[in-house]
Amino acid sequence: MISRVLSAELPERIGERVTIAGWLHRRRELKSVTFLIIRDRAGLAQVVLPTTQPVPEETAEVAQVLHAADLGEECVLRIEGLVVANVAAPGGAELARPVVTMLSSTAEPPPFDLYRPALTATLPTILDHAPTSLRHPRLRAGFEIAAASTAGFRATLDAAGFTEIATPKIVESATEGGANVFRIDYFGRDAYLAQSPQFYKQAMVGVFERVYEIGPVFRAEPHDTGRHLAQYTSLDAELGFVSDHFDVMPVCRDAVAGMVDSVRERGRSAVQLLGAELPTVPVEIPHIHFATAMAMISAATGEDLTGEDDLSPAHERWLCEWADREHGSELLFVTGYPLTSKPFYTHPDPARPQYSNGFDLLFRGTEIVTGGQRLHRHDDYLAALVARGLDPAPFAGYLQVFRHGMPPHGGFAIGLERWTARLTGAANVRQVSMFPRDLHRLSP
Amino acid sequence: MISRVLSAELPERIGERVTIAGWLHRRRELKSVTFLIIRDRAGLAQVVLPTTQPVPEETAEVAQVLHAADLGEECVLRIEGLVVANVAAPGGAELARPVVTMLSSTAEPPPFDLYRPALTATLPTILDHAPTSLRHPRLRAGFEIAAASTAGFRATLDAAGFTEIATPKIVESATEGGANVFRIDYFGRDAYLAQSPQFYKQAMVGVFERVYEIGPVFRAEPHDTGRHLAQYTSLDAELGFVSDHFDVMPVCRDAVAGMVDSVRERGRSAVQLLGAELPTVPVEIPHIHFATAMAMISAATGEDLTGEDDLSPAHERWLCEWADREHGSELLFVTGYPLTSKPFYTHPDPARPQYSNGFDLLFRGTEIVTGGQRLHRHDDYLAALVARGLDPAPFAGYLQVFRHGMPPHGGFAIGLERWTARLTGAANVRQVSMFPRDLHRLSP
Repeated sequence: MISRVLSAELPERIGERVTIAGWLHRRRELKSVTFLIIRDRAGLAQVVLPTTQPVPEETAEVAQVLHAADLGEECVLRIEGLVVANVAAPGGAELARPVVTMLSSTAEPPPFDLYRPALTATLPTILDHAPTSLRHPRLRAGFEIAAASTAGFRATLDAAGFTEIATPKIVESATEGGANVFRIDYFGRDAYLAQSPQFYKQAMVGVFERVYEIGPVFRAEPHDTGRHLAQYTSLDAELGFVSDHFDVMPVCRDAVAGMVDSVRERGRSAVQLLGAELPTVPVEIPHIHFATAMAMISAATGEDLTGEDDLSPAHERWLCEWADREHGSELLFVTGYPLTSKPFYTHPDPARPQYSNGFDLLFRGTEIVTGGQRLHRHDDYLAALVARGLDPAPFAGYLQVFRHGMPPHGGFAIGLERWTARLTGAANVRQVSMFPRDLHRLSP
Repeated sequence: MISRVLSAELPERIGERVTIAGWLHRRRELKSVTFLIIRDRAGLAQVVLPTTQPVPEETAEVAQVLHAADLGEECVLRIEGLVVANVAAPGGAELARPVVTMLSSTAEPPPFDLYRPALTATLPTILDHAPTSLRHPRLRAGFEIAAASTAGFRATLDAAGFTEIATPKIVESATEGGANVFRIDYFGRDAYLAQSPQFYKQAMVGVFERVYEIGPVFRAEPHDTGRHLAQYTSLDAELGFVSDHFDVMPVCRDAVAGMVDSVRERGRSAVQLLGAELPTVPVEIPHIHFATAMAMISAATGEDLTGEDDLSPAHERWLCEWADREHGSELLFVTGYPLTSKPFYTHPDPARPQYSNGFDLLFRGTEIVTGGQRLHRHDDYLAALVARGLDPAPFAGYLQVFRHGMPPHGGFAIGLERWTARLTGAANVRQVSMFPRDLHRLSP
């Protein structure tokens, strides 16, 4: 058997006999010839067959004589043939005089036509059939962009002296507070799924100074919206020896810029297929204080925002439009959210303690990053817990981190699905989660 | 303030005034001078102070006048000083005429001396104080080796056309069977923590052909041994268009070789500190069939191994010694384990269906990889489930993967902690898990 080549390599092989393998993406039957479009990991390849004569088989393994009409879409084929030039074929080359081996047949036709430019089914149907629908080139492209983003995040932080860590996902107390935490039966005891690696990445700042983790986080989100998932991928970073959050934001900026660069390079064909527009990341992303932002929105819209301690989705969209207009930037840092809206480990602004040294990064209308400076003194943690009416006992494992010298530090977390949705234009994060988990969905 | 340099940079800065920052690793008081050893992410630096005079402070921020004796080990300091040559200091340079700023004091002394060559406490004590004990250079070095291993795995598979994926950790049925699965309260329904990404990585072979995932897996292990954890990091790979497991094993070999190369380069100082011996990975790792191995052990030891369907830890050690002796290799593939010892998705050996197309990779006495060829036909899955008395209903989400053409495929999973323990010589995987989870431990 001639060793396999990928579809994208055919144009370089004109005049040679080669073997390709992949899924039957589409079968198009004309009167005398049938075109098979074969999909492999590199793209698509066209094969020309006689419509009515038996298909020559490579081996006697398959008992029945194959006809083109026997080949169901999504069956897996190995095809040896002669590469000939054809300007109408993908890449300008196709396989003629093929010998076909069926590697795997199908139990039934796919629930939708994967060869059409877009899947026309409803989102629930698409998700119910995820193993099949993800084979659609447009859906697959979203995950290529996600993988390229992750690689860019990692490369940027590796180059900046960060160390990759792996922390527990089963924890004894809720990290981020609130009720949206999953309970586990842990050898007969109650435990919880980690809502973030927050406590552990801080502990590891005490070890490596600069750490990152890419991994799943879990939120028992009762909200059935297009931007909430019960499990998502968090790109987390944390670093010590900062003055305040303004030393963290440039690292966040560089990580985002590295993600965009990586998507541009590693995800080129996916970007092209989706027609995705990549943002220009300014050398310094513009920033605005929460109080200033609220005053500005209030002045512009006439809304009374007194006492509001967080931005609504509409406010986030408003601010993104403003940043685009005023600063020509699709990215905007909002700093200094009120302390009451942030978790207990958040460092206050020393000058105005009702505000925090926290920040969010908004991108195309949505918050995609949350970050900030954290408390670093043991006494400050005890005081912060008491101030919020929280019992320090369940946090004993966490609090010991601060008994032994922790430098001023901060960090951030990027939600990979939200980021990818913004880049690809997906309206719902479920379209860029491989097998999403939510209030209603636990399968496939 | 002069911008910070790392300890490792001091030898290049002799004659300059610089600022370093880090943890007070050790204070050594002599009659007239006190040596401070400062630990940062790059290593150690020595600072010389007068023992009795007040320490000059950079700012007035810190109220009290500091004396060397006030500085508790593990407090965080910023120190400006003049770099002078001293052959007795780490790297041959030290900081003289220092001005010290206390960035963070300690609530109490560390529970053990971090400056001693090895931590002398018992393992439970070390683990109870993980945020502090991980600061010990030898423990930290283990995680540097783990991070370098992960980077090498990823780089090798990236170069081989694999795509990184992120799959659900909350699932509706046990992946690997058995009782060692954690139950979750999932919005009022029962769900489970994934024992492996097995089902999902197979599904993604249908999308990308070649995929890998690095992430946590969960086993409710009732065994309290030195090689079992309730959560560990699994380096998972899966690839399509293989003939059988002998097409998977070379990819596994390359991944392991890439891990060793990366540890050699990125983990150089950690390897040096631990005196770790890195294995030579043969171009082709030797392999032996399970039946041959059992016959050989039985002949050599006189044990009656009739009916045994798995290797005991003692057998694994015996085989590793044999491979070292016979093949000069610290790595050995054992192939063809009896089908009964493998999960239902395992592909049988077509010639001898009581044996599987599965393999393990043994390294220095322990199994560190499990892999093999999987079933790829829908009918074969239904038959395999029936043969094991398993109800196909909970597997419906998984089984749909095989309704629409899956190529012959296989893969493997490397347990990162076991691998790192073998490399570093750690007797217990808990020593190379940042915050281990087991039958008894849920904190810190």
